[in-house]
Amino acid sequence: MQKQIKLVILDVDGALTDGKVYYSSSGELIKPFCVKDGFFLKHVCPALGIKFAIISGGYGEIVYKRAEVLGITDVFVGNVNKAGAYAEIKQSYSLSDDEIAYFGDDWFDWSAMKYAGLKGAPSDAAPEIKERADFVTASKAGNGAVREFLEFILKRDDKFEEAKKTYLD
Amino acid sequence: MQKQIKLVILDVDGALTDGKVYYSSSGELIKPFCVKDGFFLKHVCPALGIKFAIISGGYGEIVYKRAEVLGITDVFVGNVNKAGAYAEIKQSYSLSDDEIAYFGDDWFDWSAMKYAGLKGAPSDAAPEIKERADFVTASKAGNGAVREFLEFILKRDDKFEEAKKTYLD
Amino acid sequence: MQKQIKLVILDVDGALTDGKVYYSSSGELIKPFCVKDGFFLKHVCPALGIKFAIISGGYGEIVYKRAEVLGITDVFVGNVNKAGAYAEIKQSYSLSDDEIAYFGDDWFDWSAMKYAGLKGAPSDAAPEIKERADFVTASKAGNGAVREFLEFILKRDDKFEEAKKTYLD
Amino acid sequence: MQKQIKLVILDVDGALTDGKVYYSSSGELIKPFCVKDGFFLKHVCPALGIKFAIISGGYGEIVYKRAEVLGITDVFVGNVNKAGAYAEIKQSYSLSDDEIAYFGDDWFDWSAMKYAGLKGAPSDAAPEIKERADFVTASKAGNGAVREFLEFILKRDDKFEEAKKTYLD
Repeated sequence: MQKQIKLVILDVDGALTDGKVYYSSSGELIKPFCVKDGFFLKHVCPALGIKFAIISGGYGEIVYKRAEVLGITDVFVGNVNKAGAYAEIKQSYSLSDDEIAYFGDDWFDWSAMKYAGLKGAPSDAAPEIKERADFVTASKAGNGAVREFLEFILKRDDKFEEAKKTYLD
Repeated sequence: MQKQIKLVILDVDGALTDGKVYYSSSGELIKPFCVKDGFFLKHVCPALGIKFAIISGGYGEIVYKRAEVLGITDVFVGNVNKAGAYAEIKQSYSLSDDEIAYFGDDWFDWSAMKYAGLKGAPSDAAPEIKERADFVTASKAGNGAVREFLEFILKRDDKFEEAKKTYLD
Repeated sequence: MQKQIKLVILDVDGALTDGKVYYSSSGELIKPFCVKDGFFLKHVCPALGIKFAIISGGYGEIVYKRAEVLGITDVFVGNVNKAGAYAEIKQSYSLSDDEIAYFGDDWFDWSAMKYAGLKGAPSDAAPEIKERADFVTASKAGNGAVREFLEFILKRDDKFEEAKKTYLD
Repeated sequence: MQKQIKLVILDVDGALTDGKVYYSSSGELIKPFCVKDGFFLKHVCPALGIKFAIISGGYGEIVYKRAEVLGITDVFVGNVNKAGAYAEIKQSYSLSDDEIAYFGDDWFDWSAMKYAGLKGAPSDAAPEIKERADFVTASKAGNGAVREFLEFILKRDDKFEEAKKTYLD
């Protein structure tokens, strides 16, 4: 019998964001996140027992701040060994690969993403990642793609109607 | 006889904005609003006796600042009981539900939005909200969707020609 | 004989920008301009004797800074009488209306825009302004619409080939 | 026999960015870069022996910061003689024109771009530049156009399969 997804691992740039990074003249970096994604990451999915982790090569401060707002505590950023981070997360929650989903968009995600039982990618991911993904969203990254992947998981695991019932009548 | 809309309640993220929230490396949050919307919110509709209120789960400082620029004083933000906020606004202006319009885009708006006599949603709202809305704009949120909803209200209540006459000849 | 355009008056929000205004949590406002427009405003058109002025209801500091970078000194911002500003600019350069072009996108531009001999609007302008414009660009505001309007003017006044020759061979 | 590309020269505004420049009320400038481009600029291409240089009329601080993150040290910005910068870069690496590729989008790039053996332009470049380019991307600038041009170069020079093999299996 197919196991339910217990944990979703997320890439940041081009997955939680649209892949843009803004530089200011005073040296700040800025990245755009999506509130539609955030609602499912912070409220809908945790209420149904789904956990999240982040593995990203991107800028640390921004990712930590967004993760904090979303209540995500497993955050691996910077020049990280992605496969090692994946193994560490998997072990700390005593999960098997088929209880883990991964959402990524580019070549450098693959070294970790390849192990996950369910692989998702946004419509604007690198073609080589889309070919290897189990599910490709219709939405673009940073514009509801993570939300769409999470709705797919909830439907797959028969949790979507329960989620809706909490908010809609 | 159909009553005129006296008050329009607005969600922020995904309604007044396009649903993006930007994080900077120094810890700032940034949200994008739409000047086309702002013109109707600040000038056109108030001149015709229409009031506005904001109910949002989003970040307080940004919403207060935008509301101040637009001259909106009824602002409920943060971890708010939306249905309670709706009831409070309705009572303070002694309105009935059919004098209130609501513009929202996602599941968490529904607990308050469901009471409003006229429900609007942007084209990129959650499908479950669009199904329940009386009017879905052609525009996307943050790109004139609120303006389009307000024009719909002015036409519905026979005020659009008067509005135009003030500016155009 | 048709006179050449000597001066182009520009609106800011929804004309030089895409109509978005960003608010930060520390109270800053941010507006997006377009480098493709800037190249013609700063270099190509001034070299051919065309002047620019700005009339905007928008936020002063941002407009002044962008105008300074572009070398535009006639800048009217804030709660301004647009028709009065138009008359003042026209008189100070001793121009007739048919030597003045105006690029605007919304109802509140009309009180001044209506006097200009050549009226331009971006593809995403308010429909009522597009109806009244002499030229509607294919580009959206903030995405090359001003550039397109200026190229239209240069072609109309037989200056486009001269402009190109300076840069291309 | 066709020589391999050893060096790629990049314009910034409208090439590495989407051509937008944001101004803040406190006087900051902000420009948007693309992480999909950055991955190839920082990791994939240097590992295959391809160098990068930047020639831009744009704002210095932002370009220097982005270049630093990408590991690009040959950076010419501001009111620069582009043809002179091109000649200087070419000489310092002892390259011939047919070992140099150039990616630019507008008229003012042409004085240097015209010398490069391989000329690329994004889909939203000025039409006069697209006409003169050897390769026009399907992507828009700031949205993967540089990445697409670099993939084109890797395929042309039989390096793409080697690049993929490092990341994908």
